Amino acid sequence: MSGFRHVVLFRWAEGTTTLQQEEVAARLSELPAKIPQIRSYSLGVNAKVNPGGYDFAVVADFDDREGYLAYRDHPDHRAVVEEVITPLVADRAAVQYEL
Amino acid sequence: MSGFRHVVLFRWAEGTTTLQQEEVAARLSELPAKIPQIRSYSLGVNAKVNPGGYDFAVVADFDDREGYLAYRDHPDHRAVVEEVITPLVADRAAVQYEL
Repeated sequence: MSGFRHVVLFRWAEGTTTLQQEEVAARLSELPAKIPQIRSYSLGVNAKVNPGGYDFAVVADFDDREGYLAYRDHPDHRAVVEEVITPLVADRAAVQYEL
Repeated sequence: MSGFRHVVLFRWAEGTTTLQQEEVAARLSELPAKIPQIRSYSLGVNAKVNPGGYDFAVVADFDDREGYLAYRDHPDHRAVVEEVITPLVADRAAVQYEL
């Protein structure tokens, strides 16, 4: 499977409510309909199988690096990041790689 | 798509060589042949599209939570973690979630 993958994990700040976390997931899940470069888009809340994990994962696939960059810089994506994600984030870890 | 996903990102310690990083990828890539519960297994070196990213990603899918746990606790997986990954890790971020 060729393509380009973006993986980001978030740990939410102390006191972040379930409602706030659900809003992040809801706003992100609107993006595939708005950003055609997204080939697959998987969101996940930590199942707490292991201690010390992060809270939330996004795994997004694109046809190529340019598709990811279009997503990264897309105004609708930027809005979700700035309006609902950045205010809640304690830690963020990300990798983008060629599939 | 139902199933259970394990996502882990690593940032390697200062001074970790490319050879050491390649050994991690090589040892991990042997696991699907040894652990039948692995349904899909994607390894990726950060393409350095953005500053400050982690270095390496593993995205592994299983039919269910039990499949992931079998992988997590499998002696061949434990050996790779203990012998080649743990000695090199500066930071680790992980989430497991229901697909």
